[in-house]
Amino acid sequence: MDALHAITLGDVLREHRRSRPAHLAVVDGEVRRTFFELDERVNRLAHALAAEGVGPGERVLWLGQNSARIVELLLAAAKLGAMCCPANWRQTADEIAFVIDDLAPRVIVWQEDEVGDAVRAARSLASAPATWLRHDTDDTDLDGYEAFLATGKSDDLEEPVDPSTPLLLIYTAAFGGRPNAAMLSHRACIEQGIVYGHFTGASGDDVYLNSGPMFHLGTLMHLLATFVFGGTNVFVPRVDGETLCRVIEAERCTGAFLVGPIFEQILAADPDGRYDLSSLRTVPAGRDWNARTGRDPSPWAAAPGGYGQTEAVGMMTFSCLALGAIGTHGRTSPLLQVRVVDEDGSDVADGEPGEIVTRGPTVMNGYWNRPEENAHRARGGWHHTNDLGRREADGSITFVGPKTRMIKSAAENIYPVEVEQCIAAHDAVVECAILGVPDERWVQSVKAIVVLREGATITPDELVEHCRSRIASYKKPRTIEFVDALPRNGWAVDYDALDAEFGGGNYPGGSVPSA
Amino acid sequence: MDALHAITLGDVLREHRRSRPAHLAVVDGEVRRTFFELDERVNRLAHALAAEGVGPGERVLWLGQNSARIVELLLAAAKLGAMCCPANWRQTADEIAFVIDDLAPRVIVWQEDEVGDAVRAARSLASAPATWLRHDTDDTDLDGYEAFLATGKSDDLEEPVDPSTPLLLIYTAAFGGRPNAAMLSHRACIEQGIVYGHFTGASGDDVYLNSGPMFHLGTLMHLLATFVFGGTNVFVPRVDGETLCRVIEAERCTGAFLVGPIFEQILAADPDGRYDLSSLRTVPAGRDWNARTGRDPSPWAAAPGGYGQTEAVGMMTFSCLALGAIGTHGRTSPLLQVRVVDEDGSDVADGEPGEIVTRGPTVMNGYWNRPEENAHRARGGWHHTNDLGRREADGSITFVGPKTRMIKSAAENIYPVEVEQCIAAHDAVVECAILGVPDERWVQSVKAIVVLREGATITPDELVEHCRSRIASYKKPRTIEFVDALPRNGWAVDYDALDAEFGGGNYPGGSVPSA
Repeated sequence: MDALHAITLGDVLREHRRSRPAHLAVVDGEVRRTFFELDERVNRLAHALAAEGVGPGERVLWLGQNSARIVELLLAAAKLGAMCCPANWRQTADEIAFVIDDLAPRVIVWQEDEVGDAVRAARSLASAPATWLRHDTDDTDLDGYEAFLATGKSDDLEEPVDPSTPLLLIYTAAFGGRPNAAMLSHRACIEQGIVYGHFTGASGDDVYLNSGPMFHLGTLMHLLATFVFGGTNVFVPRVDGETLCRVIEAERCTGAFLVGPIFEQILAADPDGRYDLSSLRTVPAGRDWNARTGRDPSPWAAAPGGYGQTEAVGMMTFSCLALGAIGTHGRTSPLLQVRVVDEDGSDVADGEPGEIVTRGPTVMNGYWNRPEENAHRARGGWHHTNDLGRREADGSITFVGPKTRMIKSAAENIYPVEVEQCIAAHDAVVECAILGVPDERWVQSVKAIVVLREGATITPDELVEHCRSRIASYKKPRTIEFVDALPRNGWAVDYDALDAEFGGGNYPGGSVPSA
Repeated sequence: MDALHAITLGDVLREHRRSRPAHLAVVDGEVRRTFFELDERVNRLAHALAAEGVGPGERVLWLGQNSARIVELLLAAAKLGAMCCPANWRQTADEIAFVIDDLAPRVIVWQEDEVGDAVRAARSLASAPATWLRHDTDDTDLDGYEAFLATGKSDDLEEPVDPSTPLLLIYTAAFGGRPNAAMLSHRACIEQGIVYGHFTGASGDDVYLNSGPMFHLGTLMHLLATFVFGGTNVFVPRVDGETLCRVIEAERCTGAFLVGPIFEQILAADPDGRYDLSSLRTVPAGRDWNARTGRDPSPWAAAPGGYGQTEAVGMMTFSCLALGAIGTHGRTSPLLQVRVVDEDGSDVADGEPGEIVTRGPTVMNGYWNRPEENAHRARGGWHHTNDLGRREADGSITFVGPKTRMIKSAAENIYPVEVEQCIAAHDAVVECAILGVPDERWVQSVKAIVVLREGATITPDELVEHCRSRIASYKKPRTIEFVDALPRNGWAVDYDALDAEFGGGNYPGGSVPSA
């Protein structure tokens, strides 16, 4: 290992302890800890975990809601060369049991409040042995997190850890009917923290409210940026409008994980403007919101988003790098190379769809315990995203859709998004989802599931005619079904549910079974 | 080599060619090249260099003034896994000959204009064989740079290159009476480009005027940041006020390497404001300047500088990370750890001086061809800077001075800067330099070289009394000499010249002979 050039996430904490010892690192309810205090606790936790056999390559699992303790567990794992997985606490007992048996973690930290029933059921279903620590208890038993932590010494471990080894495990990508944990290295986490922090304007003065789920990169990217630049991370166990208002006012939060429904929950919880939200700097979000908060001056806020994957610690392209460009998903992060390739790995022509592949320091070290899939996805030294995209003539990138949902009609490839956009452009249509239905002769045929505007009337034939004049004939739907609403999986349309209901399948890229 | 996570400086160029093919990459006089065109030329040059035997680990040397061709040479070396050294063109023939024999480069690119005499003399003095290419000629002979480049194919080489290998060689640190070339890796250059670019607000819209010497990190850090973020680098062979005005106006430069005398040269060259300099965003620099240019809104501009070394691609701490702090040199870059240690490598207490050591991805891979020095400087897995500093109570850093100039009086360490500040605080004093003079009994004794304010009169005894009441008695000067001015080496006081003139020596950290 090359110690001279190494920096691990544990090293970032060590330097913060030296450089900003009295600066607030984490706030969680009544808990307020400086970088000095956080490092002391991380050391204690790391010693205690080491005594339970957590060493290089071992896993620790978090089964609970958002908490500053996730950061402690992640950083203790970092100092030990171990891996930390904050799992989705909204999962069923079966799903949690799968994660436990898949990871076989040495230590599991769990929560009784809200998720205790599912966790206890999962514990009885799972067969992998582990040390279980409950975090939301004042018990002084050693199966309580605080009591366990207190058994460790506060001096630094100083174990050498290679920054290229995996640290953060995030379950994603349910291909083959089961989720897979992307292994993200120290280096990937730190460098994405710096680059994402650059575009979002991160600084050591930031106070970031982790109001999104910490089992998802959307929030974690910003947590990492705030941490790497020495700012303050604030935690709430889950989203609740009134709590968010109270915390934003009390901690003078400068940023938060905000998506449509959270804006609404905050405004609904405080219609009279009793709370002072003026410290927040956000994207514009309606007159009521804008009147009470500041504007985010960062490049990111001018064009949030881009294209990303959990498998590359989130953002791979940034929309703010391509204002006014042809492509809809920005340009490549300065840390990465991105190519668009055919099945043989050769570049396709600009403007043509192909699979997005990438390489660079933020790319995952593979999925935990999936060696065959990993070899396939990393073939030729490029991470294959399983997503389709286009390189436009001006070098910008357009994300076309998951490769798994590409439709094959005879020799032709059909990209659902193109047909969906065409149909959605009709005045009578609110939205639309395109499926591929197995066809003995043509591999698949195109089926459109359409939601009409209230009071609108249009026949399937009329909609097909609309398509015929706008896109190549082989792309037009052969059949159309009208529905009142599309099923959703959080915000995304649940295509698996649609396939199950309307007979979709036979996708050449491999469909995702709905169970 | 881990291709999946690699990014070299050549890869950055490859991605820019894909992501912003038509964006201007370099401007140099009449020459204006897009990233597409730059990559085509770099490929040709790389093929031509490969045919001359330039492969992994080989060196190419630039002996000329600033030019876009330095970027081509650097990037061609990057694609070959070779190293590129832009040498100081102000050196004597002897000094240049030393560099040639020290590096033993396969290929030397040289310039006739202004530096031809010294280069030709050095060529006859040096014994290492090389292929010599003149760059400022229209000759179609193959010993002309352009004709040589044209022999190469424009297709990409696709040689695998490990980003941890050295790429950029910069001569520095003339300990032992000779300069030494710090070897900076691809990763070090890219990551410093990102972090320095973060604090200086770099973006793909930048047009950076390389108005400082490209053999020095001051300019190169900004060149790297501009390149990594996909902006435009503009070159002038050397600083000339009128030329700078013309180029700033013509290219709408947004930034430039500006230090005191350059501001003055620009204003002196254009006293009537004929040129439009309004595109420039700079730190404030006097009423005349401010009226004609914009203000730089970046964190860096709020507190430029910090502590840095060529051996870590420049900045290691940033002043803008410690506004209002105790320390005078900021806080640590997010890419590094910094410690302040004693001779045994143990941390000294906060507020106590010790040697600054660091580790992280921007640290050099050692000096070219100095294995013993490298082992010593990298002992314990930390780069020893040979500089003294303090970690203040608030975690900020103060640079105290070069370790080589620390003075020893019996068992006591004396830091010249502390005594200098004390004496300079006296009303009668303009400035002051502190030397250590060999002393048989006490190792060294303190000597002050003092410049008095015009018309001021003060005796040595009175100045010693001034010190006695302000700093520990053993730090006060034993002898004082008054001079009209301190000798300077560029901007810095030339302590070697003072030692030579006033008998300084016997420094325990090793003095720097004046050659």
